[in-house]
Amino acid sequence: MTKSYRIDNLQYANWSEKIFREMRAGGVDAVHVTIAYHETFREMVLQVERWNEYFLRYGDLICHARTGDDVRAARAAGKTAIIFGYQNPSPIEDDLGLVEICHTLGARFMQLTYNNQSFLATGCYEAEDTGITRMGKQVIAEMNRVGLVIDMSHSAERSTLEAIEQSSRPIAITHANPHWWHAALRNKSDEVIKALTQSGGMIGFSLYPHHLAGATDCTLESFCEMIAEAASRYGVKLLGIGSDLCQDQPDSVVTWMRNGRWTREMDYGEGSASDAGFPPQPSWFEGNLHFDNIENGLKATGMSDEDVAGVMGENWLRFYDKNFGPETT
Amino acid sequence: MTKSYRIDNLQYANWSEKIFREMRAGGVDAVHVTIAYHETFREMVLQVERWNEYFLRYGDLICHARTGDDVRAARAAGKTAIIFGYQNPSPIEDDLGLVEICHTLGARFMQLTYNNQSFLATGCYEAEDTGITRMGKQVIAEMNRVGLVIDMSHSAERSTLEAIEQSSRPIAITHANPHWWHAALRNKSDEVIKALTQSGGMIGFSLYPHHLAGATDCTLESFCEMIAEAASRYGVKLLGIGSDLCQDQPDSVVTWMRNGRWTREMDYGEGSASDAGFPPQPSWFEGNLHFDNIENGLKATGMSDEDVAGVMGENWLRFYDKNFGPETT
Repeated sequence: MTKSYRIDNLQYANWSEKIFREMRAGGVDAVHVTIAYHETFREMVLQVERWNEYFLRYGDLICHARTGDDVRAARAAGKTAIIFGYQNPSPIEDDLGLVEICHTLGARFMQLTYNNQSFLATGCYEAEDTGITRMGKQVIAEMNRVGLVIDMSHSAERSTLEAIEQSSRPIAITHANPHWWHAALRNKSDEVIKALTQSGGMIGFSLYPHHLAGATDCTLESFCEMIAEAASRYGVKLLGIGSDLCQDQPDSVVTWMRNGRWTREMDYGEGSASDAGFPPQPSWFEGNLHFDNIENGLKATGMSDEDVAGVMGENWLRFYDKNFGPETT
Repeated sequence: MTKSYRIDNLQYANWSEKIFREMRAGGVDAVHVTIAYHETFREMVLQVERWNEYFLRYGDLICHARTGDDVRAARAAGKTAIIFGYQNPSPIEDDLGLVEICHTLGARFMQLTYNNQSFLATGCYEAEDTGITRMGKQVIAEMNRVGLVIDMSHSAERSTLEAIEQSSRPIAITHANPHWWHAALRNKSDEVIKALTQSGGMIGFSLYPHHLAGATDCTLESFCEMIAEAASRYGVKLLGIGSDLCQDQPDSVVTWMRNGRWTREMDYGEGSASDAGFPPQPSWFEGNLHFDNIENGLKATGMSDEDVAGVMGENWLRFYDKNFGPETT
């Protein structure tokens, strides 16, 4: 039997040959990598340039992917496919025309907000959520047209529900967990996940400790039982992994992610003054070598092999086929 | 018999639905359009955005092409294929990584200089020609790697000969004529055209009056006899058309082409204070409706139908197949 695809739909590591080798050793066929948090268009292009360097230097381990078929070709060549995404719309600045340009440069997921209000929608840390803005409606239509997937992982509830409603194509929450499992601000309500999946959208379950019940001490069993419960509530075919793995990053990076250039006061995001850095990962998921643990943990819940394969990557691959690029009829 | 391809490998018109309809009516299958003279990277991206708008609005007339096969697909769909190029390396600024980014955004030709010294080489209006610079060598290698064709139409003699020598792949002079036919500064020496074609490079013959013997009064016969003579000197297979047509442009545009933002004194380029604007086209080539005149004029010189078809577009199409994109083995 052909091994099924293994896909992690969100990582932001301190990229290195070591990590790329771990992707190969861990059998990871594709990774959606964040290339922008607060970057302007030109700064995002510098990140693409940096990845082009990686693709040259580590061309035996990784390659760039723009489609589901690129992921298949990468696996056939023994490489991990890298898909670009933004956790903020900062790279499109205030220019609708940059949506297609960003897609041409490889972007396949873009959050309408990070934690704050953007030109497009409201982030999950704002006091008031005013939903999708005037420009937000235009950008949603343009993202639908070119096939750049709307990601609402960091957005507030009303904005997320409105994005699901207004988008003519399925959207994604690439990295978050259900609020009913762990009541974190970043985790998503039952209502949101229902609306998301009922419209064909996908959620990627996060392994970032602030999103886990019990944080670093969360057990593999608890994480996998949560997924099994989600499968029974929402159906298994629109569930995947988006680990939010920030491997080997110094704490200065989480400070950048949270503060960008928008504040002089320190924002601690999901952390706190006494716990400001990256939290330690659970011992059963420290990186790309540990996907077997999740696969085995899901099987231990009684899920079928086919359903487990779906969550581990097949569902994302099918989603890529349908949602990357202009709609095919 | 299948009609052969008709390609104009250089235009910089004041684009409009009227011109796109003339391309269709004139049977023009592909046009290489200039999208940068002095533009920075971000300004060039604005030009791509503008073209993306045209592709949406006039999608029944034109489409974007990145390969020879895109040109074939455009013709099959009854459209004119549009290929992007720069007449200056200003869009790569001083960042080698932007070469690949520009290629991803569609650039297929880039001049190493316009009329002045650039970071890369010497333009044809400088007093001293110091050849290919340190960065120029790096950019040539990178353009060779990604398949972005080096264009030396506006470069000085030594720089051009060195670019031909240093490039591992054929280069192009997209729009110029032989100096032996009309001794203009922008026209090319016999030595340059020999070195160009002996290395597989192509020249596109220009219909810009300053490049024509007799200028606006140049006859169709003289132009076509020049091409027939070039075919006998250099072989016919590396000759094409690069009309340099600047249809419907106001004279402010030629002022921008010549002066950019680099001078406070007025530079008249090939013109003069008393003849500062765009010169009038010869009556037999005023635009995209007039390619039949050239085709008939070439046949009248005694050239074979096959050779005429080569000059009118088949040669450029073969060149695109070999030189757009990474080298295939």
